[in-house]
Amino acid sequence: MPELRKDPILGRWVIISTERAQRPKDFVACPEKPDPKNCPFCGGRENLTPPEIFAFRAPHTAPNGPGWEVRVVPNKYPALRVEGDLEKAGVGMYDRMNGIGAHEVIIETPDHYTTIEQQSREGVGKILEAYKLRLLDLSKDLRFKYILIFRNQGRTAGASLSHPHSQLIATPVTPKRVKEELAGAREYFDFKDRCIFCDIVRQELDEHSRIVYENEMFVSFCPFASRFPFEIWVIPKRHELDFQSQSPKEMHVLADMMIVTLKKLKAALNNPQYNYLLHTAPLRRPRKDYWTTIEHDYHWHIEIMPRLTQMAGFEWGTGFYINPTAPEEAAKYLRDVDI
Amino acid sequence: MPELRKDPILGRWVIISTERAQRPKDFVACPEKPDPKNCPFCGGRENLTPPEIFAFRAPHTAPNGPGWEVRVVPNKYPALRVEGDLEKAGVGMYDRMNGIGAHEVIIETPDHYTTIEQQSREGVGKILEAYKLRLLDLSKDLRFKYILIFRNQGRTAGASLSHPHSQLIATPVTPKRVKEELAGAREYFDFKDRCIFCDIVRQELDEHSRIVYENEMFVSFCPFASRFPFEIWVIPKRHELDFQSQSPKEMHVLADMMIVTLKKLKAALNNPQYNYLLHTAPLRRPRKDYWTTIEHDYHWHIEIMPRLTQMAGFEWGTGFYINPTAPEEAAKYLRDVDI
Repeated sequence: MPELRKDPILGRWVIISTERAQRPKDFVACPEKPDPKNCPFCGGRENLTPPEIFAFRAPHTAPNGPGWEVRVVPNKYPALRVEGDLEKAGVGMYDRMNGIGAHEVIIETPDHYTTIEQQSREGVGKILEAYKLRLLDLSKDLRFKYILIFRNQGRTAGASLSHPHSQLIATPVTPKRVKEELAGAREYFDFKDRCIFCDIVRQELDEHSRIVYENEMFVSFCPFASRFPFEIWVIPKRHELDFQSQSPKEMHVLADMMIVTLKKLKAALNNPQYNYLLHTAPLRRPRKDYWTTIEHDYHWHIEIMPRLTQMAGFEWGTGFYINPTAPEEAAKYLRDVDI
Repeated sequence: MPELRKDPILGRWVIISTERAQRPKDFVACPEKPDPKNCPFCGGRENLTPPEIFAFRAPHTAPNGPGWEVRVVPNKYPALRVEGDLEKAGVGMYDRMNGIGAHEVIIETPDHYTTIEQQSREGVGKILEAYKLRLLDLSKDLRFKYILIFRNQGRTAGASLSHPHSQLIATPVTPKRVKEELAGAREYFDFKDRCIFCDIVRQELDEHSRIVYENEMFVSFCPFASRFPFEIWVIPKRHELDFQSQSPKEMHVLADMMIVTLKKLKAALNNPQYNYLLHTAPLRRPRKDYWTTIEHDYHWHIEIMPRLTQMAGFEWGTGFYINPTAPEEAAKYLRDVDI
């Protein structure tokens, strides 16, 4: 069973998950990418994954067989486990609990070589719809406080299998990073009576120098204080608390936004490794109460982080980032690049 | 001039330093390690660095010539610049200031191939003494709020030159990560009336399962909530606010601690890449006032982080870390390894 441990000074949680790798020699050589001909995520090898949780599949095809377009399965080496109780306890001055949570893989296509931005709008729409359905389903489990959906593209970005996939992790505590973002957004709302993300969207559209792409409902831009070269945020122009509340029409327009933005990134940087993260509101907060403002101080968005630079001692020690490319330059390059 | 920009939501600062690298093509290939025969840090090539700020050198040798043991020079491509004013300003809803600060390189030896843990106690003692002297000197500049000393060992850890060296960056704002650590330590002190670091040292020495090495004044251990496999902290057993207040005797004993701990890490993990960071108290806080407690809520220490695993989407999105090696296992391995 993985264990959650809390840093006593910073309040940061760590998952000690010794089922994944352990001994010093395991770190020496990078594990090899499995040959596509043994890839467990490819169509026709459904028996190599744990049984599927959900799939978009052709009529009259059976679960865990061929015929699917997007398939969600439990992670075979989960960082957190679904079964069990939290059993929170102290260890002297320290705090720990069992590593309860969910860790799922969203396999984006049965084809090993079709990356997300190469898919049609309908294809990407189905991936996004799978995100939404898993968020809605897992939010019923009262043990979970937050669900993060993310995508690691390439080995440097943390992907251990090259077959196109996203991941989902549900955690039993609200992560520190999410709490900080919520606190920052709420503080701004209390001060200004406006959503900070709506204000950012307004200033970015107005200045235009950091815009990458815009369609009828969404905008992508390089943030003013980008941590990394070519960092990009994708955000709905209209105020919207969480990803799950999107209409089918919005999902379709978001698919276009993601395809164009990721194609631009790929073209500008010669197919870089990257992570993207869906930042949506936490699950367990009052959704309607007599302070109607509660709906107005968060605004979901996607952060795309190309992995071009290394975190070094200075970044680790301070939380400062050194970014060698001004976001205005990166955005200009991304706007102008041919896709 | 580099620019400091503040993230409006998280309050995190970013240095936009476009003098180092800019265009998409710069990221495609990793720059080559310079050939040792052109290394600007080697003895006899003192003219290839900016003029030295400080050096331990043999009597009657001239600055910027041979004869030194440890040499401190300005970074040729500084992330922050010493000259100028901060010129804080708003840009619409955003905040920026000039990138004022100091960025120095502590060259640890004239010999390209002698890494820090291969040096004698006297040799390492001089490196640590150079850290102390630079901290004392730079703390006189009232524009600086914090000084971080760190060491990047290996390319993955962010080192662009392989010649053994440490770095120092002085910042005009107290970094977020440092503020959080101070706030956590102060909160504990307010609650318990004891230094949280002293309590950690006491519990670690008592439990012993996470201890790596101990000498008369210092202890190294794998922290309870280690973020990374084989993460190690080095800390004085006696309460001590900042690195600068160490006696010559302590520096000598610390040299032994660093040599043994780094040798163990090297032996256990086959010469891993790592970062280490000196966490010391910020410069601009009242050192003596009528709350005498002000001296007792921080405790300097060194964090050593081997670079064995990758940060991936989950870590970026949550601030959670997934650590595949229990600190108790890592510490046992490090205690037992032959050096």
